[in-house]
Amino acid sequence: MSDTTDPVPQPSPLDSSPLENVRIVMVHTTHPGNIGAAARAMKNMGLSRLYLVAPKHYPSGEAAFRAASALDVLDNAVVVETFEEAIAGCTLVVGSSARERRIPWPLLDSRRACEQVYQEARRGMVALVFGREDRGLTNEELQQCQLHVNIPANDAYSSLNVSMAIQVLAYEIRMAHLAGALTTDPMDGWDMPLAPADDIERMFAHMEEALGEMGFLKASAPKQAMARLRRMFQRTRLDQMEVNILRGMFTSAQQWVRKARADQSNT
Amino acid sequence: MSDTTDPVPQPSPLDSSPLENVRIVMVHTTHPGNIGAAARAMKNMGLSRLYLVAPKHYPSGEAAFRAASALDVLDNAVVVETFEEAIAGCTLVVGSSARERRIPWPLLDSRRACEQVYQEARRGMVALVFGREDRGLTNEELQQCQLHVNIPANDAYSSLNVSMAIQVLAYEIRMAHLAGALTTDPMDGWDMPLAPADDIERMFAHMEEALGEMGFLKASAPKQAMARLRRMFQRTRLDQMEVNILRGMFTSAQQWVRKARADQSNT
Repeated sequence: MSDTTDPVPQPSPLDSSPLENVRIVMVHTTHPGNIGAAARAMKNMGLSRLYLVAPKHYPSGEAAFRAASALDVLDNAVVVETFEEAIAGCTLVVGSSARERRIPWPLLDSRRACEQVYQEARRGMVALVFGREDRGLTNEELQQCQLHVNIPANDAYSSLNVSMAIQVLAYEIRMAHLAGALTTDPMDGWDMPLAPADDIERMFAHMEEALGEMGFLKASAPKQAMARLRRMFQRTRLDQMEVNILRGMFTSAQQWVRKARADQSNT
Repeated sequence: MSDTTDPVPQPSPLDSSPLENVRIVMVHTTHPGNIGAAARAMKNMGLSRLYLVAPKHYPSGEAAFRAASALDVLDNAVVVETFEEAIAGCTLVVGSSARERRIPWPLLDSRRACEQVYQEARRGMVALVFGREDRGLTNEELQQCQLHVNIPANDAYSSLNVSMAIQVLAYEIRMAHLAGALTTDPMDGWDMPLAPADDIERMFAHMEEALGEMGFLKASAPKQAMARLRRMFQRTRLDQMEVNILRGMFTSAQQWVRKARADQSNT
């Protein structure tokens, strides 16, 4: 592709993140608020290259308002007259599409399509193309795409707002980018070390002793009450400070019980 | 939880889809447009239970406009005064949160949290809670949650619009719902059967014969040209009609070559 048909300089594949190789193309957008909302969604997800094909009202105060702190994405947006200019230089062009078309085209759901977009963006420029608010992309535009992408929405109402669709696909591209870097542990970054099993066992022994002194375990079957308490605390992954707090509570309770018993035997 | 604190009747776990057990709670929302956009995002993803805690402007024409064809979700929205009313009856309460909090809380990214939300929604009611546009949920509200969820956004601008955050999490819940039901094959639903390998081999033989007659393969190294053509067509999964069209082209070309040669030898 020659430089004259490509409106922005291509980043070198060596010094740029794949996210910088993803172009979001909005075709004939009617509501400028959607353009602003899309710019914010893009920046939130780490994307920056927005192309606008013949937008109806642009630039616009409403677009700037909805962009919030993503004005830089709007300022750098490339406004072109034709679909062809917007996809020039791209090695993969993906069109967002409703499920049914007269001639089936290669089609993936949003997750799998964005995994492919991300892989391709490691090597070259990729365009993700979104159509008009009221009727999407034309068949002619869709046939300029190598792949179609569909967000598997509710059959009863499957038409997402265009900026929402951009948010979902930008999110999926980001998730592909972060794959492997996200933790599966909900207690990641915890502020205290977790308690080792032997500390927890000593805590249970202390609990049983204290509850025994309080006469709590006499009332019903003592084994079952302790089993239920064990199950409750074992389900929670206790940290060391929590174990210390619990043992402090038991010690305090024991002191009160012992004091009460001593008072009783003194009277 | 008693019926008096629970504003809507609970669906029976036997006759309802897990998606009906997911409650989206918006706390002290300022802009009614965000409520409407959230309603549309929910319906697009198959969710329907919207709770509004003391919204600033509601009902509102702007909310109805942005809801588009999801007016039913708005009409059925439950408006309450307190956070506690909105989460009453829920067995899992998940709060959307920025990454950093003074006291760490169990925290999962959007994908893993929504997998857990979906699993829990098979058994009981789940609340997904979203805070104010300008400062999210308070620490007190976050401490009424069992789990926090974070969308792993761009550090340079991590604050998503609240309706966009609802779109992303509703999408992840839907993807958990559809897990296994989505096809991995981009040619699923194709309108023609794919061509079997022996048909494709016969097509290549015909191609080589026709190109040979046309004198095309003489020009450069014939093997390399055929290898490149083979690679090109093998990369595309050809359907039976495409193979027929290609063979029709070769037959036509052969007829023209033969006619031209016959004319030549007649003159």
